[in-house]
Amino acid sequence: MNHRVKRIFSNLTDHVDAVILMNGDEPNVDLSFFYVTGYESGLFEGCAAILWPDGRPDVISSCLEETCAVGEDARVTVYAKLAQRGQLLREALKGVKRLGVNGSGLTVRNLEEIKRAAPGIETVDVSMAIEKTRLVKDDSEVALMRNACKIASEVADDIPDFLEVGMKEYEAAAELSYRMQKRGASSPSFDTISSFGRNSADPHHSPNGTLLKKGEFALFDFGARYRRYCSDITRTLVAGKLTKQQKEMYGIVLEAQAAGLASIRAGVNGRDVDAAARSVIDKSKNVGTMPHSLGHSLGLSVHDGGRMAPGVDLPLEKNMILTVEPGIYIPGFGGVRIEDVVCVNENGCEVLTSASKELTVI
Amino acid sequence: MNHRVKRIFSNLTDHVDAVILMNGDEPNVDLSFFYVTGYESGLFEGCAAILWPDGRPDVISSCLEETCAVGEDARVTVYAKLAQRGQLLREALKGVKRLGVNGSGLTVRNLEEIKRAAPGIETVDVSMAIEKTRLVKDDSEVALMRNACKIASEVADDIPDFLEVGMKEYEAAAELSYRMQKRGASSPSFDTISSFGRNSADPHHSPNGTLLKKGEFALFDFGARYRRYCSDITRTLVAGKLTKQQKEMYGIVLEAQAAGLASIRAGVNGRDVDAAARSVIDKSKNVGTMPHSLGHSLGLSVHDGGRMAPGVDLPLEKNMILTVEPGIYIPGFGGVRIEDVVCVNENGCEVLTSASKELTVI
Repeated sequence: MNHRVKRIFSNLTDHVDAVILMNGDEPNVDLSFFYVTGYESGLFEGCAAILWPDGRPDVISSCLEETCAVGEDARVTVYAKLAQRGQLLREALKGVKRLGVNGSGLTVRNLEEIKRAAPGIETVDVSMAIEKTRLVKDDSEVALMRNACKIASEVADDIPDFLEVGMKEYEAAAELSYRMQKRGASSPSFDTISSFGRNSADPHHSPNGTLLKKGEFALFDFGARYRRYCSDITRTLVAGKLTKQQKEMYGIVLEAQAAGLASIRAGVNGRDVDAAARSVIDKSKNVGTMPHSLGHSLGLSVHDGGRMAPGVDLPLEKNMILTVEPGIYIPGFGGVRIEDVVCVNENGCEVLTSASKELTVI
Repeated sequence: MNHRVKRIFSNLTDHVDAVILMNGDEPNVDLSFFYVTGYESGLFEGCAAILWPDGRPDVISSCLEETCAVGEDARVTVYAKLAQRGQLLREALKGVKRLGVNGSGLTVRNLEEIKRAAPGIETVDVSMAIEKTRLVKDDSEVALMRNACKIASEVADDIPDFLEVGMKEYEAAAELSYRMQKRGASSPSFDTISSFGRNSADPHHSPNGTLLKKGEFALFDFGARYRRYCSDITRTLVAGKLTKQQKEMYGIVLEAQAAGLASIRAGVNGRDVDAAARSVIDKSKNVGTMPHSLGHSLGLSVHDGGRMAPGVDLPLEKNMILTVEPGIYIPGFGGVRIEDVVCVNENGCEVLTSASKELTVI
């Protein structure tokens, strides 16, 4: 993973002698730690990686994670008790005057521990450089995400096989998670959203015991985590009987997504992709019914840094992986969202999620 | 949830005018935000709660989470764009001179934003007071965790129904997650550990395609997340044919757990509970084969603050909820761990996980 460390240093705007990535306790871990180490197994709570300009990461690991830490590029030192970690940090940071930290992944408590271990050290927030690096995926990341997307797509195509009127939201969510794990996902990449009827008008609804009724929307937003990398897909179906309003809403969202997808390529700005899709919705009678961004970067985390949204400057580059997910939400009635994952290239983009988008009535 | 806020203030050792809890992006959210707001639905990335000595929380929420934020105690102000958040922070913190922050849940980047919004404000890390508060559960938390434990226990008792020689580790993990979600869990509380044969000697093994073979241990460590609260249980089974060494190991771990459980009650120190269990292992021929703590506090997070471990001062109090999970790990051969969740009371403890611990050969 030395090339990833080197890319982080090449994206720095400030000089630093080294960069530290340090995990707190779950859930407050820094996924960039796994980006630079490539560790696929293990929790690594409290562990740290110190990155050097030559690309080498040094890892300070708890003995509990020792078996997961071996066999990779990094030089690993191990502590048996948390109280010994400060001493290892002190030794590892010897000679470092300016230290980069990842402000979006480091806890305030761990920053204080670093400063106690290395008194007088100057810390600089280099999170923007780390974010910029992680935004553009390398080939091995693309391969993992391609597989994470394949798993989610296959499961999306399974929905008509198990969804039926009278099913509870959380039962449908359980089916989706199960089918992803049976295909090799380590877990869902986030809590599956399964929302029926009027609940589908809430973009972040948590599934509950609501039953699917005839004539309602059934919206599923889910993804697979595969060797730490995420996919993210949304499909909206209709139960039993389709109304004219539902068909219209679905058609507009699909058209908005097509407009967004058609405008993506390296060199274009994400806010213009958002505008291309959003304008389709805003020209319809559903003007102003999409309260969220068109999409977000995806990778080790579900929201992996950048967003395609009004006013957000995000010049697209080759090998950025993003979601494209327009939606229309009508409170009290329901919502439609259609989401795919794309990998940007010079001529456009490759859609990594292949599930059918034909309006399906079960 | 005002009583929770008041308890945080009563546990403070420093005077502060207010306390702020602020989420970064997933996974870097502060679970204490959900502790004080009681919000069961929603992501709340980037959102903040400001706590006042009278018990009132003020919430600064993204418009995306607005529907999840209503209907609770808090006074909610909403921003449509992230750029407006600083202004809302500035207004909310007017008059505050000393501000408590949760150093174990706040990112360095968010601390900087708070300081920019309220120049000259003095921040104090009050994470120890928050941790101390969350360690002792109130009745509604105990009720939720009782249910999370019930779900996990029922699924643990299901294992012999689906486990068979030739099954892959990740297939068994998928079954466990599925069965928990079908019983109402929103998700597993952490990535299920399913480890067969020699893999069971690694306490944090990530399930892979390893097949279960006759004569091997099959270790499952998993839990249900139910309305944000976690359970955590481990059971170890044997496939096909039991050897004398396996039976002995299992017996010692079971005896160690019984010794730990018998020594728990309010007023005892967690390190002495650890010692009671660990000494059973260390008096056997398996001396020194438990590299981890005996147990940890459980709640909104899986590792919820305290640990029962050698040298760790943790005076047990009524309504602390902890795991008791001794294990023996023999590299190259395999491991046994037996884990239950207990709620401490004045006379002992109540075991919340009821699954059978009889040595099961499938």
